[in-house]
Order: sequence, then C-alpha cells, then structure tokens
Amino acid sequence: MDADSLDALGREMHALAARLWPLPRSLTGDGVRRTHDLLRTWAPLVTHEVPSGTPAFDWVVPDEWNLRDAFIAAAGSSGSSGSSGAADRPRLVDLADSTLHVMGYSLPVDAVLTRAELEPHLYSLPEQPDAIPYVTSYYTPRWGFCLSQRQRDALGPGPFHVRIDSTLAPGSLTYSDLVLPGERPDEILFSTYTCHPAMANNELSGPVVTAALARALAARPRRRFTYRFVFVPETIGAIVYLSRHLEHLRARVRAGWVVTCVGDERAYGYLPSRRGHTLADRVSKHVLNHHAPGGFQTYGFLDRGSDERQYCSPGVDLPVAAVMRSKYGTYPEYHTSLDDLSFVTPAGLAGGFEALWRCVEVLEGNEVLRAVHPCEPQLGRRGLYPDLSRAGSAEHARTQVDLLAYADGGDDLLGIADTIGVPFRRARAIADVLVAHGLLTADTRPA
Amino acid sequence: MDADSLDALGREMHALAARLWPLPRSLTGDGVRRTHDLLRTWAPLVTHEVPSGTPAFDWVVPDEWNLRDAFIAAAGSSGSSGSSGAADRPRLVDLADSTLHVMGYSLPVDAVLTRAELEPHLYSLPEQPDAIPYVTSYYTPRWGFCLSQRQRDALGPGPFHVRIDSTLAPGSLTYSDLVLPGERPDEILFSTYTCHPAMANNELSGPVVTAALARALAARPRRRFTYRFVFVPETIGAIVYLSRHLEHLRARVRAGWVVTCVGDERAYGYLPSRRGHTLADRVSKHVLNHHAPGGFQTYGFLDRGSDERQYCSPGVDLPVAAVMRSKYGTYPEYHTSLDDLSFVTPAGLAGGFEALWRCVEVLEGNEVLRAVHPCEPQLGRRGLYPDLSRAGSAEHARTQVDLLAYADGGDDLLGIADTIGVPFRRARAIADVLVAHGLLTADTRPA
Amino acid sequence: MDADSLDALGREMHALAARLWPLPRSLTGDGVRRTHDLLRTWAPLVTHEVPSGTPAFDWVVPDEWNLRDAFIAAAGSSGSSGSSGAADRPRLVDLADSTLHVMGYSLPVDAVLTRAELEPHLYSLPEQPDAIPYVTSYYTPRWGFCLSQRQRDALGPGPFHVRIDSTLAPGSLTYSDLVLPGERPDEILFSTYTCHPAMANNELSGPVVTAALARALAARPRRRFTYRFVFVPETIGAIVYLSRHLEHLRARVRAGWVVTCVGDERAYGYLPSRRGHTLADRVSKHVLNHHAPGGFQTYGFLDRGSDERQYCSPGVDLPVAAVMRSKYGTYPEYHTSLDDLSFVTPAGLAGGFEALWRCVEVLEGNEVLRAVHPCEPQLGRRGLYPDLSRAGSAEHARTQVDLLAYADGGDDLLGIADTIGVPFRRARAIADVLVAHGLLTADTRPA
Repeated sequence: MDADSLDALGREMHALAARLWPLPRSLTGDGVRRTHDLLRTWAPLVTHEVPSGTPAFDWVVPDEWNLRDAFIAAAGSSGSSGSSGAADRPRLVDLADSTLHVMGYSLPVDAVLTRAELEPHLYSLPEQPDAIPYVTSYYTPRWGFCLSQRQRDALGPGPFHVRIDSTLAPGSLTYSDLVLPGERPDEILFSTYTCHPAMANNELSGPVVTAALARALAARPRRRFTYRFVFVPETIGAIVYLSRHLEHLRARVRAGWVVTCVGDERAYGYLPSRRGHTLADRVSKHVLNHHAPGGFQTYGFLDRGSDERQYCSPGVDLPVAAVMRSKYGTYPEYHTSLDDLSFVTPAGLAGGFEALWRCVEVLEGNEVLRAVHPCEPQLGRRGLYPDLSRAGSAEHARTQVDLLAYADGGDDLLGIADTIGVPFRRARAIADVLVAHGLLTADTRPA
Repeated sequence: MDADSLDALGREMHALAARLWPLPRSLTGDGVRRTHDLLRTWAPLVTHEVPSGTPAFDWVVPDEWNLRDAFIAAAGSSGSSGSSGAADRPRLVDLADSTLHVMGYSLPVDAVLTRAELEPHLYSLPEQPDAIPYVTSYYTPRWGFCLSQRQRDALGPGPFHVRIDSTLAPGSLTYSDLVLPGERPDEILFSTYTCHPAMANNELSGPVVTAALARALAARPRRRFTYRFVFVPETIGAIVYLSRHLEHLRARVRAGWVVTCVGDERAYGYLPSRRGHTLADRVSKHVLNHHAPGGFQTYGFLDRGSDERQYCSPGVDLPVAAVMRSKYGTYPEYHTSLDDLSFVTPAGLAGGFEALWRCVEVLEGNEVLRAVHPCEPQLGRRGLYPDLSRAGSAEHARTQVDLLAYADGGDDLLGIADTIGVPFRRARAIADVLVAHGLLTADTRPA
Repeated sequence: MDADSLDALGREMHALAARLWPLPRSLTGDGVRRTHDLLRTWAPLVTHEVPSGTPAFDWVVPDEWNLRDAFIAAAGSSGSSGSSGAADRPRLVDLADSTLHVMGYSLPVDAVLTRAELEPHLYSLPEQPDAIPYVTSYYTPRWGFCLSQRQRDALGPGPFHVRIDSTLAPGSLTYSDLVLPGERPDEILFSTYTCHPAMANNELSGPVVTAALARALAARPRRRFTYRFVFVPETIGAIVYLSRHLEHLRARVRAGWVVTCVGDERAYGYLPSRRGHTLADRVSKHVLNHHAPGGFQTYGFLDRGSDERQYCSPGVDLPVAAVMRSKYGTYPEYHTSLDDLSFVTPAGLAGGFEALWRCVEVLEGNEVLRAVHPCEPQLGRRGLYPDLSRAGSAEHARTQVDLLAYADGGDDLLGIADTIGVPFRRARAIADVLVAHGLLTADTRPA
C-alpha cells in the first residue's frame, strides 16, 4: 500500500470514527446495533444477537440496556417533583453533549434531589478538571452521572431535576464476525470491541482499523490464510464468542491480535500472548522492530487489560497478542472525554493500520525455504552478484547470500529475516528472486 | 508463626546454643554424644553409633578421639619433667577456657619443652591477635595448641609443661536422625553437623535451628511431605549416612538443605545445588527474594564447602541447597573464637529459622492448579472483585486474576507466584479462596 | 611443544612463506602447482587435478589461467605497435616486482595505448597510495593492472606498451589433501586455500600453518581422531572438494577449522560455525579464552568470508569454525601488497599454530569421565590433598575436588574445564592423576 493510499485510508477511517462517535455504546443496546450497522458498510460482517440469560462458561449474558435521554437540570423553586417543569429549565448536564455523561448500565431515575442527595451519584476527576470520566456499573445496580470537575463545581446548591431515561431488561447482546476464506483452513484472528462510548483511541480506533483490515483483506486477490474478524463487547462478548467457537478456534487459529488503541500518533506498543513465543508474538515484534524506528514499548502479559485476557486464558490458549499505539492505561486522556478525535488522527489510524497490515504481509509471505544446492550457488552467472562492486550492490548481494546460508529447511523466512537483520518484506523479495532462479524451494511444511 | 513466638523461639535457641557451647566437639567422642543428648531434648532424634573401621564408600570411620584436659604451663626452674610439679604452676593456656585451644584430633602429649620445641605446635593468627584459630588434623597424626597471638606473645621463654590428655582409639562415630512421616513418602531433608567445637555461627546455629525445625514440624498437625533430619559430623558423617541410605534417599528426597551458618544478623545467602534448578533451589530463591528485602548473596556451587559437597556429588545427586545467613569463609570471625554467642543472636537464629520455615511452608502448600472454567470467571458475583475500586482492592483483585491466568496445569503455584511477583504465602491464600469457590482445582500431578 | 621449539617452528614457517611468496597463485595454474610442490616438502599431501568443465554442484571448474609475464612500459615516440621496441624501454609496472600487479584471470593483451585508453584497466587505492590492491575477475573476461597510486600518478601521459602474457584455456584445477588415520574413524578437518598471490596473512599464513599442523600430527605417536587436511583454491576449490566427498564428510567430521589469517601479531579472533554450538565452537572458544589473555574478537557467522561459507552451507552443515589472528577485512593491509612478510612474523605464525595445536590437544584429550565413588573420595590418604595448607596447594586440591564434583558422566572434560574455570590442559593433567588413582573412569560414550 503506497503512502498516498495510506493517507487516504487514514482520512476515511477518521471520518468513520466521527460517524460512530455520538452513538451511545455499551455492552448491549441499540447504540451498539447502530455501530455494527455502520461497520457493515465497510465489510460484509455478519451480526448476531445472543439473548439475555444465555450462559457462557462462568458468565450469563446480561439484560439489554438502552439509554434515550438523561440530564441534570435546575429544579423549579416551587419544589416541583417528577418531570413537570423540567422542560423549561436549562440542562446543566445533558446526554446530548456527551454519551459519557451517564454511567454505563445506569438504572432509570427521574427525581428532584438536593445537592447532598445528588452527590453520591456524581463522578468527576479533580485532577483533570476538564475531563468527563468513563464509569460503568454493569453488574451492580446503580445510577450515576459523569461530568467534568468544572461542571460539578458550577452545579450550584440545587435542588436538581435528574432524569435518566434508560431501560434494563431482557433483550440481547449484539456482536458481528466475518470469515474470509483462504487457501488454507488455518485462521488468523483479529478481535476488537464495540462497547465503549465516546472515546476515540480506546475505543473507536480498534473497530475502525479492524473494519479497514477486513475490507482490505476481502479485496486481496489471494489469501493464503483464512481470516476471522470479531467485533464484540469487551470481556462478556469475547467470552460469549469463545463459548460458541472454542473447539474450532483452538484447532484453527495460528495467530491473532486484539485490535485496540491503534489511533494516536504518540507511541507504538506490543503486548505478548501469555505463552509469549507464538507466531503472533514473532510477527508483532518483527514488524514493530522495522515499522517503529523510534522504538516501541514492550509490555508484559501482566500488563494485559483487553480481550487477550480471554483469548489467552487457560483452556483457551490462543496465540493472541496486541500491536498498539499508546496502550490503554498509559496516557493521561485514557478513559475520559479527552480521548477524542483530536487525539486520534488520520495519520495515527493509518499508522495503526499499517503495522497490522504488515503483520498480514508477513503471515502471507512466510514459509520454510530450503536451498536447492549444497554450497553457495554461483550467483554471478545469473546476474545476481556484482562482477565489480558498486555502492550498495555488494550489500544486496551479501543479503542474498546470507538468506541462502540460513535456508536449511529449519527456521522460517521470518526467522531468517530476524537472523540476518532485514525487514521481512525485503527478505521476501530476495527469496522470490532466488526461487525464480531455482536456487530456493519452498519446504512443504506449513510455517 | 507470629513475631512474638518467633522472638521467644530465638531466645530459646540461643539458650540451647549456650548449653552446647562448652562441650568438646569433634568428629567423634563424648563431647559429640553429650551434644546429641541435649539436642534430643528438643526432638525425638534417634542416635546411632558406627564403629571405627567401618568402610563408607572411599572412606573408613576413624578412631574415636576423646579429650579430657590440656594445658600449657610454665615448667618449674628445677627442670622437672613429666607431670610432676605441674599442678602448682599457673596454666598459660587451658582447655577449660576454650575447647578451641587444642587442635582437633591431637595426639596425647605430656612433656617439658623449650620454647623452640613448643613453637611448631602452636597455631595463632597474627592479623587477628585476639582470636583463637580453629585447627584440626583428623587424618595426619599431630598434636598442637591453638591460642591468640597475644597469648603466644606473652608465653615467655619457657621451659613449658605441655599436656594433652587425649585418647585416639577404636570407638565409634555418633550421629542422629529423625524421620517425621507425612502423607506422602516423598522426603524433605535437613542436614546439619555437630563436629565443631566452640564456634557459634559455624557451627552451633545449624544444629540448634535444625532441632527447632524438627520440633516445629513434629508439632505440625498435617505434613504433606515426610521430613528427615540428619545430625552428623561434617564430611565423614555425611558420607557414612549416605553409604547407609543412598538408594532410599535417591528415590525419595524431593528437596533438601544443609543447615549451616544460620545465626548471625548480617546477611542472607543462598548456595545452589550442583544442578542448580531443583525444587530446593526454586524454593530457596523464592523465599529469600521475599524474606530478605535488603537482598541476599547468591553463591555458585563452586563456593560450596559443607555437606552439599557430598549430597550433590556424582552418584548421589540429591537436590540439596543451602539457605544461610553469613556464609562460612566470608566473615572475619569465621573459624575463630570470635564466632561466638555475641555474634550469633536470638534475632539472628530466629531469622535463620524463619527463612527455612518459609521454605517448609512453600513445600507444604505447593501444588499444580488448574482453572476450572475457560476464560476468566465472573469474580464480581462471588464478591471477589470490587464493584467500585477502593485503595488496594483493585490490586488484590488483579492478583487473583493473574493467578487464574497462569493456572493452566503447567507451572506449579510456586512458579506462578514467581511469575506474578507475589510471595508464595499470598498466592496460597488467594488460591485457597479460589479453590473454595470452585474456580481452581488441584491437578493430580505431584508438585 | 615448548617455547624454544615453537620459536624455531615460527622461523621455519616464515621461511616457507618467503619461498612461496613470489609464485603467481590464482584459482588455477602452474603457480598453484609449484605452491603445492613446496607444501609437499612438509607433509605427504596428495595432489589432485580436476579438469576444466567438471561440474561441482551449481558450479563448473573454470579454465586454467597461466601468467608468464606482464608489464606497462613507455612506448617509443615512433608510435611503434605490437611487441617491437618494448624491450628497450624501462618497465613502469612489472610483474617481476609483484604478482599482485596483474588482475587475477586477466586476458592476454599486447598493445600500445594512450593514457586514456589505459585508464579503465588500472586499479589503485588513492587512500593507500603505497599499496598495490588485489583484484580478480574470475568469471567476467577482463584485463587489468593493479598498481600503487604513486606509480599511477607517475605513469606520465603515454603512450604505453602494455603486455600481459597469459593464457586462459582448458586445463585443470589443482588441490591437495592428506588424511592421517587415527584410532577412530571420526575426523577433524583443517582446510586452507592456495589461490592468493603475494599476500602474507591472507593468505600464506593459512597454507603454512596448516602444513605445520599436518607435519606435527603426522609425527604424533598416537592420534585418537583421524585428521584431514585440505588445500584448495577458495570457494570453487572447497565446492569441488565437497562435491567429491560430501557424504563421507557429513558422516565423519566431528569438528573442523578453516585456517586463514593466522600469521600477524595483532589480535586473535573466533568466527563461529553457522550452528554456533558445535564441538569446533566449544573448543575454539575455550582455547582462545586461555590462550589469548588479552582477549579476542568474537565474530558472528554473518561476518564469515572464507570457506566456512561452503562447509557450513545448508546441505553440507559441517561443524567448521575459524580461529584467526587479525581477520580478513579488518586490518588496513588486507588485500593489498602491504599484507607482507613484515606484517606476518615468525612469532605471529607461531601464535596461530599454537592456538590451533591447542585445539588439537583438547580434541585428543577430551572425553566423558565419571567419578568412581559416590561422595568425594578421600584424597588425603593418597597424598592428593594437603594435610596442612601451603600457598597454592589448597587451590590445586580444590580444583581436583571441583573436577570430581562435575564428573557425573554428563558433560565432557572440556565442559567441566569451562565450568570450573581452568584451562583444558590443567583439567586433563588433574584427570590423569585421578584416573591413575582409580577415582575417575572414562565413560564409554564418545565425546
């Protein structure tokens, strides 16, 4: 993919994120459904509904939550209660301004409260006075408003009319997946999550980049691997998905990535699988070594926090890692309204996409190769070796020879690229020439 | 064991060491027997006698040495010889002052000697003028006196009446052992030595702490492992013991420690087994990592010097390591009269005991565990996960989740504790809760 | 070998190099044959001729090149052409001064040329104005003269009579080998190359030291291993040799060395085999650790450049490393006339020989040993342990004990020497004493 195409894709992805931004996402509900509707405009995802109450390993699918409206307004001096008189007072906190304003899975409420009564239901961040925090209470019944410290400080003494027009009732959990068949049944998994409301790096970047990967792979003329894309609510969604596909995934998945926090421009990061030396780990480290020339942060599995928790758990044990930009929990905007579409940029998304696309390129191009002849072949008579040195030519010739020297049918091309210190893409290009000249041959073993 | 009990135990151990102090110990003899008599007041040791001349691998049990009296006195000016006239002269060097004054296994002597004749039989340390050195000549017939450089300088010109009332004659070698049966026949070995005269860290601390371990384990209501305690003279005693129990020990011992130099307050040290990665090594390193927060000295097997030389020798190959305080050979008081009961303290002995007792706790609590459910379980509905964060609660919940994430039936709980960076005791407590909630189960494999 | 013998051998080797110096060596030709004739005066090498056109894996034996005369002379002002008149003009560049003056495998030429016509055929090094570079064009037809920059600057405007009296025609490639049978059919390989014209470290040192190794091993009363010595032109010669002996060498060779750059006094270097942990690697590193007390340079296999390229290639996979002095490509005199017999010295050659001879000593003395008795034996009664310490005696006794402690039939004596930190020679001497006392016994496994 050339630089111009990548720039254009970055802008497209950023525009998609902007359309997804206002939808009220949570574990379940219509905001999630509309999110999946938009994602399906990029790739032919298949959307599934799992009824509340469905068991999934140690868990049960929760009730569906829908949020229509919410506000805190000054109540009339007449002490009016209920919804009467609310319409004619200005809203001090309004869902229409940010879907973060309501604690996730808040119970409905409609009451006039004193400031003291309201206080236990308010969440703000004194040290980040302009940020609205992201708070949820999925499994303990509560209601609450999240607001900036400045808003909180300006609320006044009350009384307040507070209203959350939500429902929590049996319904279903929504997820989507897509399988793009390849020449081999072995699968590569990309999983992302669609439960976060208005936050951009964590987490609109994941769904948007994953949709772009799916679109690009669907358009790819040849796929050696089969690709599986999963869009679920975090934790419960991954658990539901695994409970329905565990044996298949254990048998088929050769490498996978949780796609999260891939939209800002600050950093790159790698989080290993639990076992730490899987194909996903090898590919991730190779790609970031060459793609992030300024270096990248390597985390430990103990730093995990997204659905690799499920994919790598005992009894699941999939080779799933993460290639990120600024990792969740490590940047100050994390889990607040400051994680917005200025922090996530077209270039940031393009960089996240490109890193993962290079992982795909490595997977598609990787194989075990074997030198055809004992000893070095005579490259010179094939025009592959300079008969007199010119700048750069000797180095290229040397790389050819080095690649041949390690092509003993043991390590795969990715491993050889690491050993001889060149990007996979260059190793693959050299190998293609050597194969065309009958000097290298593919081993029959799968990589 | 709480801090008060440990303090009391430290004082008890120090008092036992004080009673053992004046007994004239060596490889053999009545001083050793009386030492074992006192140790039997703490634990039901079984004492054995092995006749002189008994072969043990490449060795033979030596003659028994008994020492009743010894002194250097000024001889009368009348040139009296033999024992006559000695009683009425002051003793310049007297066994009653220190059992170190006589070279171990000294032949008997009773003679009047000039200073020049006496000189080759004197041992002192010019650089430590107040210290009496510890010298033995077990296998080459000699006699000698050990004294401080100050005593030596003050001896005067002589002549001297020197007398060592010792016997070296067929008898027997004394050792004790104790086996405390557990639920499993697999054994844990603690071995210490009882051949050193008046020195405290090296070596009254070993017998005293080992006796305390035996007493505490005898009182323990449940023992998963069988425990074996061995009190022998160093080298020849361990060789004799191994020659009698080799096949049994090779078949049964899962971990073992030579207990030596466990009584001062300066340092902690770890000396590995020859193979270096045995259960004893893993347990020792884990315990010292958490027990010695200021750090501890890690030695190599080439630094060995006690009975791990025998236990780890080719053909024996037991998984035996050492957890020490200041290691033999590394502190200035080593092998002199300065290694006394002010250098070894109640707190020092308590610390040595506690480190080894924590090794026992790890061994008793270690097992291979397996998560019951694929994916993370829902800890929240069991009250195991904070529904809102409080200080500390999130960290505890995280440790639970980390422990579950590695409980795949592969590594044991000790290994998981190391991986997730918590003391074994805490990992065990968390595992107990998770087992009680049906989320973890013991693998049937022995740890 | 004592220091005096080694000094004498150094002088002998240097004298042999001086006799080899003026012969016009290349891949093929009579200069090579005369080189092998001289080498056969040191050891009973068997010389072979392989006809031009013979295939060898991906290669074909090239035509034979012979060079009789070559010069650049000022041409007469009368514009004489051809060979007429040349004899009476002084030669500006003359083969008789240096065999480096003619590009290897130059086509014949005899012409009068202008300076401009001559220029593309001249090779010099502006940054090393006194050095004649070494240039070849084996597989692309060319002719050329190599000369110092000072010579080039002084050539004048021309015209020039240039003449290269060479022939390139079907003939044969010359190589020699020697097999010295040992008690075991397992082979140790030493390979060097005879294709470089007048350069001393790279490469007269290799043939000369290899001849000395062959002579010394032929004279050795007992050889545990069979030794194979190979003298070939670099690359094509090794490929030809491998094409004729591949299965035999793969089955028999236990360790091997490419002998190159072993004649100067500056440095020692080690270049690993491709697999990196073969017997040749272990021996090389051990020997250099103790032989080069100032340290030595460790290269990677990616730094290779001589016939280890062929010996370690996929499908050949021999355990071949290199022990060098200043490695090719790393010293300023490399591949120029400055790499001469003042840079290579008797002491430099002696040091190169000695390092490789110590490798032989390790190989001949290495075996797997096993302690006869469980536990430490009683060294004292055999006079092997000091009954009282003297300076040095305790350390020696300790080394004995350490060697016994690791003699468990697992690691070989070389590995034990590394573990306990002593030179192999000392470990072997101690082991001999312990074997003589019945305390150690050879394991039956081959090392």
